[in-house]
Amino acid sequence: MKAVRLHRYGENPKIEEAAEPNLIGPWDVIVDVGAAGLCRTDLHIIEGQWDPIQHPHLPYTLGHENAGWIREIGSAVHNVKPGDTVIMHPLTSCGLCPACRVGQDSHCENASFPGINANGGMAQQLLTNARAVVRLDAGLQPKDVAALADAGLTAYHAVRKAADVLFPGTHAVVVGAGGLGHIGIQALAAITSATITVVDPSEAALELAAKLGAHHTVLSTTDDDVAKKVLEITDGGAHVLFDFVGEHGAELLAPRLLRNRGSHYVIGYGGAVNIPTIEIISREINVIGNLVGTYNDLVELMTLTAQGKVTLHTAVYPLDAALDAIADLTAGRIIGRGILIP
Amino acid sequence: MKAVRLHRYGENPKIEEAAEPNLIGPWDVIVDVGAAGLCRTDLHIIEGQWDPIQHPHLPYTLGHENAGWIREIGSAVHNVKPGDTVIMHPLTSCGLCPACRVGQDSHCENASFPGINANGGMAQQLLTNARAVVRLDAGLQPKDVAALADAGLTAYHAVRKAADVLFPGTHAVVVGAGGLGHIGIQALAAITSATITVVDPSEAALELAAKLGAHHTVLSTTDDDVAKKVLEITDGGAHVLFDFVGEHGAELLAPRLLRNRGSHYVIGYGGAVNIPTIEIISREINVIGNLVGTYNDLVELMTLTAQGKVTLHTAVYPLDAALDAIADLTAGRIIGRGILIP
Amino acid sequence: MKAVRLHRYGENPKIEEAAEPNLIGPWDVIVDVGAAGLCRTDLHIIEGQWDPIQHPHLPYTLGHENAGWIREIGSAVHNVKPGDTVIMHPLTSCGLCPACRVGQDSHCENASFPGINANGGMAQQLLTNARAVVRLDAGLQPKDVAALADAGLTAYHAVRKAADVLFPGTHAVVVGAGGLGHIGIQALAAITSATITVVDPSEAALELAAKLGAHHTVLSTTDDDVAKKVLEITDGGAHVLFDFVGEHGAELLAPRLLRNRGSHYVIGYGGAVNIPTIEIISREINVIGNLVGTYNDLVELMTLTAQGKVTLHTAVYPLDAALDAIADLTAGRIIGRGILIP
Amino acid sequence: MKAVRLHRYGENPKIEEAAEPNLIGPWDVIVDVGAAGLCRTDLHIIEGQWDPIQHPHLPYTLGHENAGWIREIGSAVHNVKPGDTVIMHPLTSCGLCPACRVGQDSHCENASFPGINANGGMAQQLLTNARAVVRLDAGLQPKDVAALADAGLTAYHAVRKAADVLFPGTHAVVVGAGGLGHIGIQALAAITSATITVVDPSEAALELAAKLGAHHTVLSTTDDDVAKKVLEITDGGAHVLFDFVGEHGAELLAPRLLRNRGSHYVIGYGGAVNIPTIEIISREINVIGNLVGTYNDLVELMTLTAQGKVTLHTAVYPLDAALDAIADLTAGRIIGRGILIP
Repeated sequence: MKAVRLHRYGENPKIEEAAEPNLIGPWDVIVDVGAAGLCRTDLHIIEGQWDPIQHPHLPYTLGHENAGWIREIGSAVHNVKPGDTVIMHPLTSCGLCPACRVGQDSHCENASFPGINANGGMAQQLLTNARAVVRLDAGLQPKDVAALADAGLTAYHAVRKAADVLFPGTHAVVVGAGGLGHIGIQALAAITSATITVVDPSEAALELAAKLGAHHTVLSTTDDDVAKKVLEITDGGAHVLFDFVGEHGAELLAPRLLRNRGSHYVIGYGGAVNIPTIEIISREINVIGNLVGTYNDLVELMTLTAQGKVTLHTAVYPLDAALDAIADLTAGRIIGRGILIP
Repeated sequence: MKAVRLHRYGENPKIEEAAEPNLIGPWDVIVDVGAAGLCRTDLHIIEGQWDPIQHPHLPYTLGHENAGWIREIGSAVHNVKPGDTVIMHPLTSCGLCPACRVGQDSHCENASFPGINANGGMAQQLLTNARAVVRLDAGLQPKDVAALADAGLTAYHAVRKAADVLFPGTHAVVVGAGGLGHIGIQALAAITSATITVVDPSEAALELAAKLGAHHTVLSTTDDDVAKKVLEITDGGAHVLFDFVGEHGAELLAPRLLRNRGSHYVIGYGGAVNIPTIEIISREINVIGNLVGTYNDLVELMTLTAQGKVTLHTAVYPLDAALDAIADLTAGRIIGRGILIP
Repeated sequence: MKAVRLHRYGENPKIEEAAEPNLIGPWDVIVDVGAAGLCRTDLHIIEGQWDPIQHPHLPYTLGHENAGWIREIGSAVHNVKPGDTVIMHPLTSCGLCPACRVGQDSHCENASFPGINANGGMAQQLLTNARAVVRLDAGLQPKDVAALADAGLTAYHAVRKAADVLFPGTHAVVVGAGGLGHIGIQALAAITSATITVVDPSEAALELAAKLGAHHTVLSTTDDDVAKKVLEITDGGAHVLFDFVGEHGAELLAPRLLRNRGSHYVIGYGGAVNIPTIEIISREINVIGNLVGTYNDLVELMTLTAQGKVTLHTAVYPLDAALDAIADLTAGRIIGRGILIP
Repeated sequence: MKAVRLHRYGENPKIEEAAEPNLIGPWDVIVDVGAAGLCRTDLHIIEGQWDPIQHPHLPYTLGHENAGWIREIGSAVHNVKPGDTVIMHPLTSCGLCPACRVGQDSHCENASFPGINANGGMAQQLLTNARAVVRLDAGLQPKDVAALADAGLTAYHAVRKAADVLFPGTHAVVVGAGGLGHIGIQALAAITSATITVVDPSEAALELAAKLGAHHTVLSTTDDDVAKKVLEITDGGAHVLFDFVGEHGAELLAPRLLRNRGSHYVIGYGGAVNIPTIEIISREINVIGNLVGTYNDLVELMTLTAQGKVTLHTAVYPLDAALDAIADLTAGRIIGRGILIP
């Protein structure tokens, strides 16, 4: 089969023939890939940034945001059958470790992560397992949802964790209305009653944010100016601030935008949180980490997508044009999310 | 009446005659002080550290940990009557602001804080209000509980917030077994099922910790050594770490002692939390601020005290010996908490 | 001033001159009534049904759903000032009892209930207190919101309690799309992500329900037929069923419409819940009681109303026409909620 | 191998040779049984009461409370290895259905229930699966814990669900201090801070209850008398009442013993809950169903058992004496729980 395989860090992957995957374990599932999202993380993988963390065995196939149709199932699989349309949770979780037993499968101790530390979905077929597959509503196509499998899921997970406290009258502030942020805004509008204020340096991004459900938008200028505007709009600061940037100062501005008892949800990364403990305690504020979502989060996100409450802008490329897509992403020429179709 | 009044920062307070308080508002309450706790915060007040934050009007009476007997009540007060034995929540909350309406009265927008920004309890009488008074069980005496009104309440508040996740099999780690920490350990033993591990540089403090309910103790040495031991004892790190120090490096060591999805509860202060966002998200860890407890927290803490589950070691001084007490506290000569008796 | 006063059970109230209220306690507030809702409970009061429960002193003024403008405030009131537009929580809670301290003020031990056991709002002025008043957004008028003070608040309270479990993919079933039910449907659509199915015997009510946010409607016929349809629509039963009827068999049908682990929220009354314990445990289902909402619930409901997410159909009468309004309500001639304007 | 097999309802089971189980699925596990609890449910099975609900295929082996040592594991099993000491969750859950994905595996859609609808553990070997096995602490023996696998787990599950609201100062009332109840009392004492009041008609049971952690005991006499005493002890009623009886009137007395906003946890069965909806709403009380616990509940219960906080009184019989044990249980001659040792 055809696959986009990385042979050496710092070089473009190759589009080449690769062996088809085989069922090994009883819960294994092979999927005919319908669409694979292309993500900035793929660029970082190619650069070699993830090697020390995940140390995959080169060469291997990229693609960690995948959807398609069930091709073949292991002997113990009973939740899907060949032909079913599915999206894949990024981890092939085990169902036995403590994290899995409480539904926190994104912390599974025994999972592989196709496209990151095992062969991924930029190929005609993908090996995953029964605990990773979410069956799709009849109205959803792989190419429309694939990019939600990781980026969208991460944004949804953070919003979902905060949803209990975002009742009518509360203020959610979103910092960064890019790839993840614009899913986060839609999720906030769909599952919370909070007033949504979005901060971003791009006027175009703020315009899109307003269309997707933001009640207020603030163009990033100086920290002082942003703080002044946000504190005014929110009548004293955010109950929950979603930091989809996590670097370049956003992570340092965040505490200034919180009201007392507010929480800084960290989703983006690159920088460092740095807050005097006196400020943490005197204002009783919190910093909350957010990893990719759980399987149940993905089920819920697919429900919202089928209901038309979350949508993605995509730029579709055939798998053969993967290098063009990578070049376009690198050059900032993709509007929305790049999708590869085998 | 006699009172311990601060006239000038950097100088000892004076024990002198002061005017008795008068009922002003309909919810006011005047208390015959039975005991007032002496606290390290009092030393900081005397040094002037709190002036820029709370700017009290000098001279004023110290004492923010108070218990006693109701002397006189305002026209609208119906929850206590003269003669009742009471402990005072540190804030005279309003009952009308949003924080009060959800029971988060320690964030009241209209409260005064006797002993901090208004006349306190190191005197024969104290002016407080109906929303601050907690009636005491017949078995409890002011001198036995006064020091729980602020320090103990803060420790209890943090433990209470975490209690929902500290079920059997989880690990709570306490860093700092001093004044607050040793109340925290008792609270953990009383209201959670967690295995308790205590870290402190003092062998005596660890011995006391073990008597109060700690299952494991770790003598502070190097960070690497503490981390190694705690990760081993907790089989991978704390579910919740209570940082009663918050400075001198404790606040930086904390994340290393957490397991994935764990939380660093900040209670002590002085330093700064500093964590790369990549670590926050990849481990999905949290930093949780903790202020002094709510009125309801104090009610619960008094229940535990009446049940004998929380006890304080105290060193009692007559009010006239307040300067001796201050000198002893400054010199580290007080075992347990210093208490002034008018 | 003019007032609608009940002199004798079983007889129409009289529209007559009554003494204006006076401020007594320091937290008292006198309101110029802008609108008073007329409710089926008023008919029951006139019939005498509430006498044994609330035993008001006759004659007294009816009206327990009130909004208007602050006229005069007691000496300790600082959260409103004369001229403010307000809606009144039905209870004048104390702020001191255990229920008040946790924000459950609808269970206040010391409250009066104007219009039920004290003079109500079908008059030119109303005596209430500082803890009952919610300031209204500039866009809201007393006549548009008064009927939300009790009926709407009750519906909102039930939905709000259930909101945490009504995430995307879950099913909420509403039984009874009348006065309370149609607020409940709007609240469900506004603050939850559940799929909403409404059951009612009236086609007109179901048409309205669909406009207000119901995704599915089921015309009440036989229990078997309703059960079959609801189980099919909900793929196995409701996660939460809101029973706005509570009598005439609705309360007995409810458990059949729940999925395992589902909850029957009782809001309407008149009948009795009757379920074999074997069914309760083998399906692990719950029955949840719901009283009128809290002060915070009312604040949130007013927020939703100001946002245009909850609206009421009203039929407005001048206070002088109160008897006409009562006659129309008795005869079923009022579409929506009757409102009296002094 | 030897097994206790039921051939015909209404007749004693036979102790006879049976085929050893074989691994079929990749997640199957075969256990050398160390101990099997004998339970009143076994008597009901023999009588045929469970046939219409679970319709097992006769003859089959009884025993649904099992512990032992891993003998053989399926190809996909990696969480236990031969020789491990284990207790079995009663259901062999699937890990794929919605209930399993949120950790509510006792509602698994695809589970078998050994000893109820499949061959159980009153035999030398038992077939179960990888998701059912909990490894035991080195200090625990199968015979000491087997009876916790179902009866104890059910009691623990109910207490665990209520634990979040049972903070210091609250009142838990236990009705029925028998097999389940006496585990419930120990669980309450171990993981909550509630004051525990136990109601039972047996003085011996109440004496045991007091030893296990009950703070107050009430001998069952008339309903009026019990209600009077419980309301007095609890200062207005239980926050949570655990009804381990569920029949003979206990289920009707329960609402009278609740305070406003209290909850009636139904665990025992046989009767029917019957409460007027006006009472449910005006007091805002709840009825909460409780099924057997989850896998995680069993892990926690084993932690408490290893810590010595939960203990069982047992009467041990060799497997060959199973009919004696059944006769003794029928005749009420067993103190504590009967345990069969193969």
